[in-house]
Amino acid sequence: MDLVVKNGIVLTMNKGMEILHQGWVGVDKECIAAMGSQDTLPQPGAETEIDARGGIIMPGLVNCHTHAPMTLFRGLACGLPPMAWLNRHVSPTDERLARESVYMGSLLACAEMILSGTTCFCDSYRFGEEVARAASTTGLRAVVGELFTGLAAGGDRGDTLPARLGNHALVTVAVGLPSVAEASSGQLQGAAALAGKHGVPLVMPVAETEKEVSQIEKMHGRSPAGFLESLGLLGPGLVACHSIHLTENDMALYKHYDVKVVHCPESDMACASGVAPIPRLLGRGVIVGLGTDAGASNGDLDLFCEMDTAAKLHKVFAMDPEVINAETAVKMATINGARVLGLDGITGSLETGKRADIIVVDLSGRHLVPMYNPYSHLVYSAAGSDVAASVIDGKLVMADREIKSMDLGTVMNGVREICRKKGAL
Amino acid sequence: MDLVVKNGIVLTMNKGMEILHQGWVGVDKECIAAMGSQDTLPQPGAETEIDARGGIIMPGLVNCHTHAPMTLFRGLACGLPPMAWLNRHVSPTDERLARESVYMGSLLACAEMILSGTTCFCDSYRFGEEVARAASTTGLRAVVGELFTGLAAGGDRGDTLPARLGNHALVTVAVGLPSVAEASSGQLQGAAALAGKHGVPLVMPVAETEKEVSQIEKMHGRSPAGFLESLGLLGPGLVACHSIHLTENDMALYKHYDVKVVHCPESDMACASGVAPIPRLLGRGVIVGLGTDAGASNGDLDLFCEMDTAAKLHKVFAMDPEVINAETAVKMATINGARVLGLDGITGSLETGKRADIIVVDLSGRHLVPMYNPYSHLVYSAAGSDVAASVIDGKLVMADREIKSMDLGTVMNGVREICRKKGAL
Repeated sequence: MDLVVKNGIVLTMNKGMEILHQGWVGVDKECIAAMGSQDTLPQPGAETEIDARGGIIMPGLVNCHTHAPMTLFRGLACGLPPMAWLNRHVSPTDERLARESVYMGSLLACAEMILSGTTCFCDSYRFGEEVARAASTTGLRAVVGELFTGLAAGGDRGDTLPARLGNHALVTVAVGLPSVAEASSGQLQGAAALAGKHGVPLVMPVAETEKEVSQIEKMHGRSPAGFLESLGLLGPGLVACHSIHLTENDMALYKHYDVKVVHCPESDMACASGVAPIPRLLGRGVIVGLGTDAGASNGDLDLFCEMDTAAKLHKVFAMDPEVINAETAVKMATINGARVLGLDGITGSLETGKRADIIVVDLSGRHLVPMYNPYSHLVYSAAGSDVAASVIDGKLVMADREIKSMDLGTVMNGVREICRKKGAL
Repeated sequence: MDLVVKNGIVLTMNKGMEILHQGWVGVDKECIAAMGSQDTLPQPGAETEIDARGGIIMPGLVNCHTHAPMTLFRGLACGLPPMAWLNRHVSPTDERLARESVYMGSLLACAEMILSGTTCFCDSYRFGEEVARAASTTGLRAVVGELFTGLAAGGDRGDTLPARLGNHALVTVAVGLPSVAEASSGQLQGAAALAGKHGVPLVMPVAETEKEVSQIEKMHGRSPAGFLESLGLLGPGLVACHSIHLTENDMALYKHYDVKVVHCPESDMACASGVAPIPRLLGRGVIVGLGTDAGASNGDLDLFCEMDTAAKLHKVFAMDPEVINAETAVKMATINGARVLGLDGITGSLETGKRADIIVVDLSGRHLVPMYNPYSHLVYSAAGSDVAASVIDGKLVMADREIKSMDLGTVMNGVREICRKKGAL
């Protein structure tokens, strides 16, 4: 074997939610070749050995919805109503963003994601090829969408994205749309046709705000989900981000068409958009993943925070502490996130034959002692900063909190320079 | 000067919310002696110099409500309804907890609090003298209450606490009560009399659950706050934790009597207790601090998480993104927390003459670049693990993430040993 992660509690996140309490995972080239309990560890070991030192060995997290380059705007004019924030502060800066700035912002976002346990992310922004290049440079698996229409400078370029993406082994394509209300029926159908042609997901916010719902209802006499159904857009390849203001009928449609949902609790809270009906979607069997949304609206790109918030938010919103348990939150951040992106054959769980996307969560922190249950520890007590190592596609991308592939200091200085012109301190 | 913290952005949290963009804070013995901008830094410097390296220099955080020893139960049977969790799992273990276990659990909690920026906490549990000893050993400022009645083994011992506390320079006393519904009128009045006699706060949950409210209404025909008023218990020394299910009249009573409120958003969410009407309390001018509540219900003792959650939760609950801004969240975690505990003459802001309770937040993390606004960075993007140094009462308690006063490894091993018997992994 080329690489072994050993001496940890292996959470496989496979169908049986199997746990190897003292286990190891072996990697050959890009794939998981074997795993077992400590006494079966092959000797001599692999070329690269990662000692989890009693920590948790688990699949890397999947961030199903973000806008990596917007890391450049983190904290800019925050606390304003979303549209004032976006239109008055972010967009004016945003539209002048040069290609190189998009690359630098994406690099920094990739670093933050790797250092908080994400091994795969789905992005929607402009200059998708720059986001892809950043993912590829840092070694992250990515599904890169580009806004098919909407934002001026990037408008209607989504159709050329597959050609522009270049040859990045871990990057695949998605078609992105800014929102149901901001696109014409023709654009929606064009985007769906493009996604269908390339066999890639169509990623878009659906029913994110009350305003969007009332606009669509006024224009088309239907809910956003109902309107998308009438256009033939509902299907297993539709990644419906946010999905906050859904009717029971919308949820039934989601289930019927196997629409995927990305829940972004922290960003939805910060934007005062509402609380998505996740427990009811889960109850119907809809596949739900987690997303941070942009660092600019959320504050961070840390899926550990998202798991914690998702679990707690729905408990209080439903006034029922059993409504989302810790296992469910970890599933949303791993295997179900992979399902949302159509990548569950590749990542999201530790199973022989899958690509080796593995993280190690250090359990030696003073805030992680004692431990009764690894799932509740991951959700309620661990932080992104507890991730000690990250293997993506069989490659050791981060060890002891150091990213192998980039000079983080140079990237941070570059970003500081870009942002100083926008008023950063 | 004995100690200088220099080369940072000084957030004073004083009345004018003054910020020194490149500043220093000088300490003589226990107190803040001077502060200024970088060009006024006295030369030669102090005996101990702490270089903030461009980070944030700010008052230490005040955790107004916790149960430090319950760190021993973090993650135990989590996700159950609160009463099943408490009665079936926690209390049976809890009541057998030996004095030494309380001390060890408290030591670990103190370490976690110091390492996430807390310099002062208010505790309610049994064996108050052990909690006090742990605070004193680690160098934390503390207000230690003891449950005056209720939990069997600790029952009715609050009246002897002042005598038992011993001579810990940074520890003062509070009288604690488990809840309005669990005490008789006589016990409530006895506790209040005791608090009055010693001139210390009376700390208790008020209107934490719907069940409590309906019990009190059934028994006394009033809301919990109204009932406490009828007993003469409302006043500036009452620290009303949680305060979730309040009527408009209750809030008016709080303002009228200058009752203090401790908001524990994460624990309230995890227990599905409800969302406290914090924006309306703030609108009436009621003083509100933040608390983590127990590590067992919350998952952690990190006030950075609490600031983030408080700000986001109220935005989505009120569907208004301007309802609590980042400055307000930082105030709740610092100066207003100190006010809640009656310690605002001593801590909670950086002002000459106050005790030197100072933390340094490192801004060199990849998730903190760029920075447009220090308050929004603290609330939405920074984590407890970004706290680089902590000075309490003029003493350097933590530097470069190392606590000076204790051997953390030994404490963690001790706690692991205690908890293994309870089923910890």
